[in-house]
Amino acid sequence: MRQVFDQRLDSVRGALVVMSATAASAIRWASDALLAADLAPAEPVLRADDEVKSLRRRVEQEIYALLAQEQPVASDLRLAVAGLHVAGDIERMSALAVHVAKAMLRRHPERTVPPEAEEIFRRMGEVAERLAWKMTRVLELRDATLAAELDRDDDEMDALHRSLLSLLFGDWRHGVVGAVDLALLGRYYERYTDHVVNCGRHVTFLVTG
Amino acid sequence: MRQVFDQRLDSVRGALVVMSATAASAIRWASDALLAADLAPAEPVLRADDEVKSLRRRVEQEIYALLAQEQPVASDLRLAVAGLHVAGDIERMSALAVHVAKAMLRRHPERTVPPEAEEIFRRMGEVAERLAWKMTRVLELRDATLAAELDRDDDEMDALHRSLLSLLFGDWRHGVVGAVDLALLGRYYERYTDHVVNCGRHVTFLVTG
Repeated sequence: MRQVFDQRLDSVRGALVVMSATAASAIRWASDALLAADLAPAEPVLRADDEVKSLRRRVEQEIYALLAQEQPVASDLRLAVAGLHVAGDIERMSALAVHVAKAMLRRHPERTVPPEAEEIFRRMGEVAERLAWKMTRVLELRDATLAAELDRDDDEMDALHRSLLSLLFGDWRHGVVGAVDLALLGRYYERYTDHVVNCGRHVTFLVTG
Repeated sequence: MRQVFDQRLDSVRGALVVMSATAASAIRWASDALLAADLAPAEPVLRADDEVKSLRRRVEQEIYALLAQEQPVASDLRLAVAGLHVAGDIERMSALAVHVAKAMLRRHPERTVPPEAEEIFRRMGEVAERLAWKMTRVLELRDATLAAELDRDDDEMDALHRSLLSLLFGDWRHGVVGAVDLALLGRYYERYTDHVVNCGRHVTFLVTG
């Protein structure tokens, strides 16, 4: 019984690792597309999102089946339910990568990000991707120490977000449309890493209680 | 056994009804505060959020206990797990109402919403509140027909969001700071009703499979 439960949960965790890795790649491609105003990397972001959505459905079905058939209790139960939460967070991360790609597509072939904001968005993309890969490792290794780092790592995104607002509210010379685009983009990146932090909290909570 | 399960689930549903009603009131207060640039209604939004967060923790604990002790299967199991999702969505709704209130607080005593955008935000506030009250009734009455309406109701918010962007991208005379504030506010309202729609889908799915 114990062994069956562990095997089934491993299968769920495997799917979550793939989902997390896909969402990490998606924000990388979306950021590349955004900064280069290039259509080529935008297309796989949409494909990745389909994949993530389909994996989420599979994870949900597996977890429902696992709950019904194995009737886990205590920490096993929490582990199974945490899987549902993590799957939901990763789906949102992927949807936010799609929002980034679409923000680029709306302005193409014009550039959405003007030169003076490039550095901020390049770093936002890097931080988002780095956190998502760390989350992927957390899921692979069930590493609560690593999971606990995510909260602090997210401070970097918050600082970048503040820099972005200072830029927009300072000597901004690209008009209202450009400012609105960047403000929304900043929000998408910020929410992306918020969801990574949520995932990390579920894992931390599970390990430390 | 059956009776105990139903009673426990009723207790969870009761808490979700309170959470949903609180989130509905919160967006109403936040909208009032925003449109009147008035501090008085902003304060209860923050208190409501504390209440919602604390209820969410209670709902989670009750559902974990219920899963572990009653070991529900099939539709009962899905009902219990849906409760976790719904609680998560309502918590986000409340957090978004806080974002609306804080956007007002950042500019106070200046007005965040200029006269030509007032009608859009008044209607966004109304739509958000109306959907949240409908969701509250859905949870009270377990009414899947009503739940299915939420998806369509949300089209109204999408239309308002498009009107807002037209306004910002048209003949906007209030500068970049004002435009960024309103773009983010529009996003908060849009996400608020997205979460209502999510809740509705969980309920619909449960009733219709």
